[in-house]
Amino acid sequence: MSIKIGIFGYGNLGRGVESAIAQNDDMELVAVFTRRPPESLKLRTPGVPVMSVNSVAEMKDKIDVMIICGGSATDLPVQTPAIASMFNCIDSFDTHARIPEHFARVDSAAKEGNKVALISCGWDPGMFSVMRLYSEAILPEGSTYTFWGKGVSQGHSDAIRRIDGVLDAKQYTIPVESALDAVRSGAAPELTTRQKHLRECFVVAADGADRARIENEIKTMPNYFADYDTTVHFISAEELLRDHSGIPHGGFVIRSGKSGFERENTHVMEFSLKLDSNPEYTSSVIVASARAVARLSADGACGAKSILDIPPSYLSPKSPAELRKELL
Amino acid sequence: MSIKIGIFGYGNLGRGVESAIAQNDDMELVAVFTRRPPESLKLRTPGVPVMSVNSVAEMKDKIDVMIICGGSATDLPVQTPAIASMFNCIDSFDTHARIPEHFARVDSAAKEGNKVALISCGWDPGMFSVMRLYSEAILPEGSTYTFWGKGVSQGHSDAIRRIDGVLDAKQYTIPVESALDAVRSGAAPELTTRQKHLRECFVVAADGADRARIENEIKTMPNYFADYDTTVHFISAEELLRDHSGIPHGGFVIRSGKSGFERENTHVMEFSLKLDSNPEYTSSVIVASARAVARLSADGACGAKSILDIPPSYLSPKSPAELRKELL
Repeated sequence: MSIKIGIFGYGNLGRGVESAIAQNDDMELVAVFTRRPPESLKLRTPGVPVMSVNSVAEMKDKIDVMIICGGSATDLPVQTPAIASMFNCIDSFDTHARIPEHFARVDSAAKEGNKVALISCGWDPGMFSVMRLYSEAILPEGSTYTFWGKGVSQGHSDAIRRIDGVLDAKQYTIPVESALDAVRSGAAPELTTRQKHLRECFVVAADGADRARIENEIKTMPNYFADYDTTVHFISAEELLRDHSGIPHGGFVIRSGKSGFERENTHVMEFSLKLDSNPEYTSSVIVASARAVARLSADGACGAKSILDIPPSYLSPKSPAELRKELL
Repeated sequence: MSIKIGIFGYGNLGRGVESAIAQNDDMELVAVFTRRPPESLKLRTPGVPVMSVNSVAEMKDKIDVMIICGGSATDLPVQTPAIASMFNCIDSFDTHARIPEHFARVDSAAKEGNKVALISCGWDPGMFSVMRLYSEAILPEGSTYTFWGKGVSQGHSDAIRRIDGVLDAKQYTIPVESALDAVRSGAAPELTTRQKHLRECFVVAADGADRARIENEIKTMPNYFADYDTTVHFISAEELLRDHSGIPHGGFVIRSGKSGFERENTHVMEFSLKLDSNPEYTSSVIVASARAVARLSADGACGAKSILDIPPSYLSPKSPAELRKELL
């Protein structure tokens, strides 16, 4: 019997979830919910109804796991608790500093509804968190480093677009190769913000705009760019479309630690991702995790969870015996 | 209250476990069991008794988790079921093809004793298995590659030592850099045994031994070397001791997979280890996992488990709330 999935919100992430479901034989997309007029959406999967978010309660008994595809800033803090009281669900809440309060709110809603709600699923938070946990638990005396990129930062691209005279922009976060090498050597260096990442910006300026001022405003922008070595390239709208339409991302979690009675041996654990499409990979993690949510619920669990709480085997369609034979 | 650990067998792995316990404040080494005369062993940890393996039953109520440090060929198939009937325990059984039968035997013994027994813990099987599982579950359409090295293979070194005229030898397994690059590109190449790994051998020959014959016997040895590009270096006993005394190892698990409605996007997940000491890193994984075994037992679980069945959070001394705040 297949796992019945609902998608709540149909942007980049929702479309990624739809395509990932099509790669998993044990899953079935049952409905997509939207705030837009349902008839304005065209799905890729034949025969799946598009419904208004207002009629979600009607589907309470027809969906095993709801995948909530809203944004972390304003959507998920409201949507996830509301959905968790009615459905097993997953979100990708990624405002790291606010995870504890989000968890608490979702946990109480999910417990009220006797549902399982997996929050902050994806790659960071998500798979990177898993790797930080394993590597710290295995090598308790050591240092963990997370690097992001090369990839597009939506927030930084938006910040550039708000500058007067900028028509469009794309910003790449790039890890500094020499910093990666220093970390991989096991030397456990102390690294400043500037030493870890570069920022590269591709900007379409309005005709006659003062490019020197725009470049200066970008490079001195507090929080976003001032603490980084930033390069700015002015290009045409055509070039932006042609060369920078993708949403690649990735990154590295590296831990070096010591073992031995005299701490004489060094070990380096590294996990990296190189992603053509950030939203599609995030969706792929979420869809595998939907399987785990369905199983946890079948086990009788309820409340909020994170991927740190879930046995790896729960993400796979294979049985424990198959996993031991093929992958252990 | 600390977790009380016993070590069953005191070779390289047992010593590694002893040093790893000293890095974990919530653990305490309670006793070491040996087949040798107990008075012949000198531990590094003060005040810990060395006992005969024959008196292990006496400690039944004084040890929370027994870490079994025997070899996979003949020790563990006998030791782990025997210990699992009396103690929560962990082994590092690494004969991949025989894992299902080992699991079945340990499972029935552990269930009889109402104990938890974690088998095949370490890095491969172990952390590499976890990564193979996660990456296959997340990217169901793709290819997984495991590379080992650069590192010392004990089995291959032993095979060389059995050749007539060889006094001592050390063999390194080395992943082929161009194969790693091809896999990382996302091209999903088909690779033969020869294309994936090189074998490099450092051999101390007896005075007057026929080096050409020794080199030929190594390079044509079925299973061990015949399918690989192998290089042989003859060196002195002093050089072997000076340059090749370590037990480094490591390796790579890489999966590339596709996403998108047209499978138009490629993603590469890579996990790698670079280890100064193979037994000490293996021990570090085992000791973190001992914490998980103690928790599973406290939860009321029993029977055989693998690391694939264990929530990552169970390996950490931190609480779920701390983990969410600091690592998620």
